[in-house]
Amino acid sequence: MPSENKSTQPGIMTTNSYGKSRVRLTKIVREGDIHNIKELTIDIQIQGEFDRAFLSGDNSQIVATDSMKNTVYVLAAKNEFESIEEFGSILAEHFIRTYKHVSGVTIEIEEDLWQRVVLDGKAHPHAFFGAGGEKRWCQVATDRTRATVSSGIRDLRVVKTTASEFWGFIRDEYTTLPEVRDRIFGATIASTWVFDKADHDFNLCYEKIRSAIIEVFATHHSLSVQQTLYEAAQRALDRCNTVKSISLIMPNQHRVPFNLEPFKLENTNQIFITTDEPYGLISATISRK
Amino acid sequence: MPSENKSTQPGIMTTNSYGKSRVRLTKIVREGDIHNIKELTIDIQIQGEFDRAFLSGDNSQIVATDSMKNTVYVLAAKNEFESIEEFGSILAEHFIRTYKHVSGVTIEIEEDLWQRVVLDGKAHPHAFFGAGGEKRWCQVATDRTRATVSSGIRDLRVVKTTASEFWGFIRDEYTTLPEVRDRIFGATIASTWVFDKADHDFNLCYEKIRSAIIEVFATHHSLSVQQTLYEAAQRALDRCNTVKSISLIMPNQHRVPFNLEPFKLENTNQIFITTDEPYGLISATISRK
Amino acid sequence: MPSENKSTQPGIMTTNSYGKSRVRLTKIVREGDIHNIKELTIDIQIQGEFDRAFLSGDNSQIVATDSMKNTVYVLAAKNEFESIEEFGSILAEHFIRTYKHVSGVTIEIEEDLWQRVVLDGKAHPHAFFGAGGEKRWCQVATDRTRATVSSGIRDLRVVKTTASEFWGFIRDEYTTLPEVRDRIFGATIASTWVFDKADHDFNLCYEKIRSAIIEVFATHHSLSVQQTLYEAAQRALDRCNTVKSISLIMPNQHRVPFNLEPFKLENTNQIFITTDEPYGLISATISRK
Amino acid sequence: MPSENKSTQPGIMTTNSYGKSRVRLTKIVREGDIHNIKELTIDIQIQGEFDRAFLSGDNSQIVATDSMKNTVYVLAAKNEFESIEEFGSILAEHFIRTYKHVSGVTIEIEEDLWQRVVLDGKAHPHAFFGAGGEKRWCQVATDRTRATVSSGIRDLRVVKTTASEFWGFIRDEYTTLPEVRDRIFGATIASTWVFDKADHDFNLCYEKIRSAIIEVFATHHSLSVQQTLYEAAQRALDRCNTVKSISLIMPNQHRVPFNLEPFKLENTNQIFITTDEPYGLISATISRK
Repeated sequence: MPSENKSTQPGIMTTNSYGKSRVRLTKIVREGDIHNIKELTIDIQIQGEFDRAFLSGDNSQIVATDSMKNTVYVLAAKNEFESIEEFGSILAEHFIRTYKHVSGVTIEIEEDLWQRVVLDGKAHPHAFFGAGGEKRWCQVATDRTRATVSSGIRDLRVVKTTASEFWGFIRDEYTTLPEVRDRIFGATIASTWVFDKADHDFNLCYEKIRSAIIEVFATHHSLSVQQTLYEAAQRALDRCNTVKSISLIMPNQHRVPFNLEPFKLENTNQIFITTDEPYGLISATISRK
Repeated sequence: MPSENKSTQPGIMTTNSYGKSRVRLTKIVREGDIHNIKELTIDIQIQGEFDRAFLSGDNSQIVATDSMKNTVYVLAAKNEFESIEEFGSILAEHFIRTYKHVSGVTIEIEEDLWQRVVLDGKAHPHAFFGAGGEKRWCQVATDRTRATVSSGIRDLRVVKTTASEFWGFIRDEYTTLPEVRDRIFGATIASTWVFDKADHDFNLCYEKIRSAIIEVFATHHSLSVQQTLYEAAQRALDRCNTVKSISLIMPNQHRVPFNLEPFKLENTNQIFITTDEPYGLISATISRK
Repeated sequence: MPSENKSTQPGIMTTNSYGKSRVRLTKIVREGDIHNIKELTIDIQIQGEFDRAFLSGDNSQIVATDSMKNTVYVLAAKNEFESIEEFGSILAEHFIRTYKHVSGVTIEIEEDLWQRVVLDGKAHPHAFFGAGGEKRWCQVATDRTRATVSSGIRDLRVVKTTASEFWGFIRDEYTTLPEVRDRIFGATIASTWVFDKADHDFNLCYEKIRSAIIEVFATHHSLSVQQTLYEAAQRALDRCNTVKSISLIMPNQHRVPFNLEPFKLENTNQIFITTDEPYGLISATISRK
Repeated sequence: MPSENKSTQPGIMTTNSYGKSRVRLTKIVREGDIHNIKELTIDIQIQGEFDRAFLSGDNSQIVATDSMKNTVYVLAAKNEFESIEEFGSILAEHFIRTYKHVSGVTIEIEEDLWQRVVLDGKAHPHAFFGAGGEKRWCQVATDRTRATVSSGIRDLRVVKTTASEFWGFIRDEYTTLPEVRDRIFGATIASTWVFDKADHDFNLCYEKIRSAIIEVFATHHSLSVQQTLYEAAQRALDRCNTVKSISLIMPNQHRVPFNLEPFKLENTNQIFITTDEPYGLISATISRK
């Protein structure tokens, strides 16, 4: 068997990309006694003229991924930013401007959210507790002509205990699910939205869209996950004008009624088996007309 | 090599236990339009006269773990309970009373916490969102003479950006850590407390101890994780008289200052590498005098 | 604030999809005393005319995701298959043929791999142990005109302790990484390949490509992750003619030399800090000429 | 509400411990061209006279956990060792000897296992692939008078497709599980054994006990998980004389027969739902007579 010998080369490289993933940054900003904490995890990917590295191990075009990691910390130190979208743009522009042979940059940032401790009704200046599994997310994708900013929520866990029905679906030989007029509806929602104008307040938009989703989830009388998802997306577009499209992904995390009949009890829609899998997965993208 | 043949029997069984783990229960309680949701994960372990099952495969003493699972759902349907500690006691007593050859039962319950959605300042009757990674926990351990109830918090994530020092520790040939007068202090706290009286309000105690821990974490000027942990435990004992001892476990989740010198910048205690590992792990138990 | 009222409808739905995820199947096939076990996790997504469900909650076009789950088990019972690709095709064809309003189906299958226990040099007929974290994977994507089959490996963990260099990369103000002529190279490889002919042996191809990747990883003197990845892809195309393109993703999981100087010791390329994050992430697709 | 003020001190500290967790070490040992790789994760905990740190923030007795981390790498560089048990003993002895006020040390080590790549039937000198999820583990616990060494296996995943029955268990009002004469038996086994003599070959013992467990799992006709567990423990004691007791933990990871009746098919013990939870959990300790 050949070993050190090169293979014949039956293929040509059609795409390639590389970068650094999970660069973890804590930044403290102090305004007098009031401290703010940001904890971000950053992924960087770049495209460009890197063929020589792949084909012959010539690294002269390669920005080391270790240097990318350094760049995150250095630019975080040098720049003020109000949102992850801003910091993502700073990073994307840095790479595209500094390295002429880089044709595209994608920055993804996930933010761990912290909530200020409140004591005796007063927000504490420098102590925080974890604001849940929910994360804020953004992606800034740049090429030499334009940048696209997407923002999002990840892991927004919700449940409602009524006002959810599911019936009228196809019944055929593969169907055993009974129709139900009152079920639990639980999901861990992810949403991503894309901006179409340069001028927007990312933080305000985040709050508005998050509220719109939770509000629709809570108040909409649901005939299907599909219908609630669609309505939440419309409400979000309605609330934030700078967004041109929004995607929602809703896993339908089933609570299965436990069969109490063998125990001579009736399950009055009260006792359920909580399950993680399998789960329904519903997604759609709604774009502004 | 022998296969079906029995081994020689060089040993005797000194302990054994069995049960069902991760029984997941959702229970909805409705008070008119107002719904409450409880989502619990229950682990059951029993000890007793089960030697014949181990030694000869005679299962006549064995309560099937599947029956234990059924019991969780049946007893959840038949009983009202205000706290996981109460439900744990109901389960523990059931097994010890029903099966005479069972000598000990341990029930552990973890509660996923849900927070009511608030719209226009009004709590929603049936919609909830995930109240973070934090979980409530309890253990009820019973033998034929008495039961011990322990309660706890798991995964309480906190961070403070100042008022934490660490210096004056042993400096020897293995020491490279600089002394520091102002550092970030982050932890994911677990606490377990043991009650000594039969008569107590588990839910109130939980709130009081949780507040005490967060309050001390926020306000205590820390010279070490040890000192803050100790103070938090004392405060908790102070707030809840029915608790006879409390344990705290605090992982010290380091934020490491990023060295900006190679980039001709000064790190004014502002830019850090967030790390998960390695981490310091400090624990202690404080018992009421 | 409006609640039950519909939002204004500023958007139109541009894409949607739904299905069932993480349907977990164990299938035992017996050939006399010799048993075979397959453990698969299946994800199903369908596209088609589902607008009425999203827009008005009319579910008459909806195949319940619960029925999709049933279908997995029923078709697994009715059909023999030699590979996950075959079973994926059976599922995809079923959905596209049975439901006229379904325009596209995507099936993804992940296989947990089991290895037969060997006792006294003999393969055991019905006992197995876990063959590592490595998983086999496939995707079958069908519309009404054609199906595309992709196959892959996930979580193939490898490490080599020498024959890996990294130097000659860009050195600028963001660079602190030293050049290195002998480093550890570790990765958890994922690879996906696409077939271009109807007639192929999926299992044989899997074995050939897996061997090609491991062989190149082991024997290639690496000047960069990029170069090794490229060579592995070429070798794979060389070994399996029915594959028209292959993608590889290689996270560069760093082992960082521990600085022994403060302890008056020299690190002779022997003692390292094992890290999970951050990591370099290199990917490319190589297509047959 | 008081904040900086000290709490009243209702409690006294009854136990405390601290240390460093998840110190991750890669060590390469070269014998000519043949390289060996060890990847270990080390947890250190020490007990002793640390009261002043807890009570008043006086750190003069404190070995910084950062120094503990350094110590791992320094002692790994200075010492040769053949097994994790040996390295654990080196670490434990170091801490107990160096720091007079330390009364107890517990070292836990988990080893990620690597398997040498084989090409053309020849073991490769420096390339390895991941040998599965299975991990080797040990604990060395020392006080000033003696050390106890325990060893173990973690995450040994096994399944058998027949030769497992379960019947004759208690049938009462909580029982719905049918009796079964032929079921799948799957588990992710953990085992811990304790040595009673100073003189033993840890690596040989590991291989012998691992083989004994797998052998019994494969060949024993099981009437219950309890019975198979007991037999595996006896076989292990039989094979390794220096072990004085062994514990086994076996989660019973159920494969639930899928009900094919609604689809007018018979399930001939062939089609199962793979589940993770709930699971049975059986454990026992067998001590040498």
